[in-house]
Amino acid sequence: MTFEDLARALEAAIARDDRDAIAQRVAELNPADMADFIENVRQPELEIELLMALPLERRADTFGYLPLPVQQQLASRLPPAVLAELVTAMPADERADLFNVLDEGVRRLLFTRLAREEREDLRRLASYEEGTAGAVMTSDYAAVPNGLTVAEALETLRLTAPDKETIYQAFVVDKDHRLKGVISLRELILAVPSSRVDDLMEREVVSADVSTSQEEVARLISRYDLLALPILNSGGKLVGIVTYDDAMDVAEAEATEDMHKGATVGKLDASFREASPLSLYRSRVHWLVVLVFANIFTGAGIAFFEQTISAHIALLFFMPLLVASAGNAGAQSATLMVRGLATGDVSARDWAKLLGREILVAGALGLTMAAAVMVVGVFRAGPEIAAVVALTMMLVVMIGSLIGMGLPFLLDKLKFDPATASTPLITTLADVSGVLIYFGLATVLLGI
Amino acid sequence: MTFEDLARALEAAIARDDRDAIAQRVAELNPADMADFIENVRQPELEIELLMALPLERRADTFGYLPLPVQQQLASRLPPAVLAELVTAMPADERADLFNVLDEGVRRLLFTRLAREEREDLRRLASYEEGTAGAVMTSDYAAVPNGLTVAEALETLRLTAPDKETIYQAFVVDKDHRLKGVISLRELILAVPSSRVDDLMEREVVSADVSTSQEEVARLISRYDLLALPILNSGGKLVGIVTYDDAMDVAEAEATEDMHKGATVGKLDASFREASPLSLYRSRVHWLVVLVFANIFTGAGIAFFEQTISAHIALLFFMPLLVASAGNAGAQSATLMVRGLATGDVSARDWAKLLGREILVAGALGLTMAAAVMVVGVFRAGPEIAAVVALTMMLVVMIGSLIGMGLPFLLDKLKFDPATASTPLITTLADVSGVLIYFGLATVLLGI
Repeated sequence: MTFEDLARALEAAIARDDRDAIAQRVAELNPADMADFIENVRQPELEIELLMALPLERRADTFGYLPLPVQQQLASRLPPAVLAELVTAMPADERADLFNVLDEGVRRLLFTRLAREEREDLRRLASYEEGTAGAVMTSDYAAVPNGLTVAEALETLRLTAPDKETIYQAFVVDKDHRLKGVISLRELILAVPSSRVDDLMEREVVSADVSTSQEEVARLISRYDLLALPILNSGGKLVGIVTYDDAMDVAEAEATEDMHKGATVGKLDASFREASPLSLYRSRVHWLVVLVFANIFTGAGIAFFEQTISAHIALLFFMPLLVASAGNAGAQSATLMVRGLATGDVSARDWAKLLGREILVAGALGLTMAAAVMVVGVFRAGPEIAAVVALTMMLVVMIGSLIGMGLPFLLDKLKFDPATASTPLITTLADVSGVLIYFGLATVLLGI
Repeated sequence: MTFEDLARALEAAIARDDRDAIAQRVAELNPADMADFIENVRQPELEIELLMALPLERRADTFGYLPLPVQQQLASRLPPAVLAELVTAMPADERADLFNVLDEGVRRLLFTRLAREEREDLRRLASYEEGTAGAVMTSDYAAVPNGLTVAEALETLRLTAPDKETIYQAFVVDKDHRLKGVISLRELILAVPSSRVDDLMEREVVSADVSTSQEEVARLISRYDLLALPILNSGGKLVGIVTYDDAMDVAEAEATEDMHKGATVGKLDASFREASPLSLYRSRVHWLVVLVFANIFTGAGIAFFEQTISAHIALLFFMPLLVASAGNAGAQSATLMVRGLATGDVSARDWAKLLGREILVAGALGLTMAAAVMVVGVFRAGPEIAAVVALTMMLVVMIGSLIGMGLPFLLDKLKFDPATASTPLITTLADVSGVLIYFGLATVLLGI
C-alpha cells in the first residue's frame, strides 16, 4: 500500500473511532509518513493519541521526523514522565536539538527526570556552536577498545547495539579515547573470529573536528561515501559521529540556502511552506531596498546622457535588451562559479584556467549576440545605431560574464560566502556598466 | 596525515622513483583521494602505473571514483585481460556506466572476456533509460529467501557478502523473487538465532520502480533515511537497489542542474571545471538569444511611449530601479517556489494558501519599496513624478512577485520542470510589465 492508501485507511479508522484498526494502521505506517500524518492532523488531542498509540521506540523515531516547532508544541503538552521516557529513547543529536527549542520551564522539569549520563550528554552537545559538526553530531556511536579480537569486538557491538545510531562502522579507540582506526561490521563478519581488529582496521581515518562547518562535514561524507564521519574534540578524542542521513539533510538545506541567497532571499524561520508572512517579508525586504539604491546609479547614468538620448531617442529601444543581456550572461557565469565553488568542483587555484576559458566563451557569446542584435538594429534604426548597438552588445556580454565569474572568486578569496554574489547583485552591476557603455559609445560615435 | 600531506609524500616518492615508497603511499591514500591524484597526474604512463600499484579490490574502488571520461581513456589503454579483471571487480552500476561510454571496439573485446552472469547483467542494466532508477541501480544487492531462520539468513549474508554493495539491508524474497520484506543486519545480529526472519522483518517496504526518476529515488532515500532503496521491475520482482551514496550524488547533481537552469544554463558535457568551451557556449547561447528577442518587447514598450518620455525625460531616471525591483521581487518568489517544489516542501495542492500569503508579503514589500522610492522621487523630480513612481513601484513589486510565484506553479501543473521558470525569464517578464505600467501610468497621470 502507498503512503496515501495507509493514511486514508488510518483516517477512516479514526473517523469510526475504531481503536484496534487505529493501532494496526499506526503500526504499518513508516515513521516518516506517520510524522507527516500527525503534522497534518491539526487536532491537538488526536496528535497526542496517535503518538501514544505507537510503541516507545517507534514513537521516538516518529517524533524525530516531526519539524522542531511541532516537537516543541507536543513536548509542552505531554506529561513530564511520558516526555522523559520519549526523550530518553531519542537519538542524542535529535534530543539535543529538541532541548535547544524547549521553553525554560519544560526544560528544567525534564532535566531532573533524565539519567545523569543523558544530562551530561545534553550539556556537552548544547555547548557547540550552531552549524558546526559538534552541533549536528550524535554521541551514540559504536566504539571498541583497541587490542580486541574480532570475536570480542563483535560481542561488544552486539551488547551496545540497541543504543547506537549505527553499528555498521565501529571506531577503534585507545584508553584515552583517541581514534586509532575504523572497521566495518561487514569486515568483522567476514574475518576469522580469532584475528585481531588492530591488524584489520583502516588506520587512515577520514575525520572532522567539532568546529568543522556542517557543510564541510556533508562534503566529506559525500566525497568518501561514508556511513558515518567520526568527530574529534580539540584534544583529538572521539566525541561523536555524523551519519550519512544527517549529512543528506545538511546538503539539502545548504543547497536550498545557496539558491535562496542567489535570489537575495535571506534565512527563513521555517521551511518555505511553513514560513510566516513576517519572516518572508524580513528575508526579502533587505536586499530589495539595497538594490533600489544601487539601481539609482543606473538611473543617474541615464540622466547623465539625457542629451544623447534626446538627440537619438531610437537608442532607448535597444537599452532593455542590451542591459538584460549583460545581466543574463553575468547570471550564467555567476551561477556556474558559485555552484562550482560550493560543490568543491572548482577552487580558487583554478582561476587562471577558468578566466582564460571564460574570455573565450564570453567572446563567442558576445559575437553571436552582436550578430543577432545587428540584424534587428539595421531594420529598426539604420546602420549607424545598429553598429553602436552591436559593439555595445559584444562588450557588455563580455563584461557581464567577467563580473559574474570574478565576483564569486573574489568573495571566496576574501573568505566570504561566494553565494552572496547573487544574481540580482550581478544584474545590477551589469545594468550600470551596460548603460554607461551604451550611451558613452553612442555619444562618442554618433555625437549629440 | 591529511590528503595533501599524503599526496605530497606520494609525489616525492614518484620523483625519487622509489617503488617501495610509492606502493606504501598508494596503500595509505583513500580511494577517493587516490582517484583525485591519478586524475591530476596528467602523465598517461604514470596513471596506469599508479593504478596497477593497487591491489585489485582497491583498484576497482579507486577506478570507480574517477570521472567517466578519465575511466574511458584509461580503459582504452589497459590490456584487455587487465581491463576485464578490473571491470569484473567493479560494482554492477559503475560497470554499466563505464560500458555505456566505452568505444564499440573496446566494448566488444571486453565483452567476450566477461563471465556470462556479468554479460547478462550489463545487457539488463544498459536497457534502462538514463535518469531512471533502473539506470542508477546496482544488481549487487543482498537477498535472502523467505522462510529462513535468523542464523540461516546470517549465514547466507556471510557467504554472499564479498560481492554485495551492502549487506546491512537484507531483502527477503519469495521463490518468484517478489519482495516480501526487509530486515537490517543489526536486527539479525540482535535477534535470537533460531527465530524466523519472516516474523521479524518489516513488511511495509518503501520501494521504487525501474522507471521511477532518479530524483524521486533520491527523495525517497532522503525522506525515509534509507541505506538502500529496493527497485522492482514492471512484474513486481526485485531487480536492484539504489544505495544512499548514489542518492547523495544524484541529489547534488539535481541541485546543480536546477541552479544552472535557474540562470538559463543548459546541460554541460562534464563538470563545470572540465567542461569544454564549446559545451559551455552551447549551454549558454540558446537562452541568451531567446531572451534578447523577448526583450525587444520591452524596447517596443519604451518606443511606444516615446512621446511621454520626451515630454517628461526625468521619468527615465527611475526606469531602471522600477523594472529591476519588479525583476528582483519576481526572482525571489520564483526561487522560493522552484526550490520548494523540488524538495517536496510545497506541492501544487498548496496553491491557495501560498497565493494568499504571497499577496500579503508582496503587498508589504511593495509598500516599503514605494516609500523608499517616494523620498528619492520628491527630491529628484518633484511630487507629481514621485507619486507616479511610488504607485508604479507598489504595482510592479506585486506583479513581479505573483509572476515569480505563479509561473513555476503553472509549469508544475502542466508537467514541465518548474526550474525552467528561470530568473532571467521572470526578470524579462517583469521588465515588460514594469515598462508598460510605468509609462502607461505616467501618460494617464501626467499627460503628454
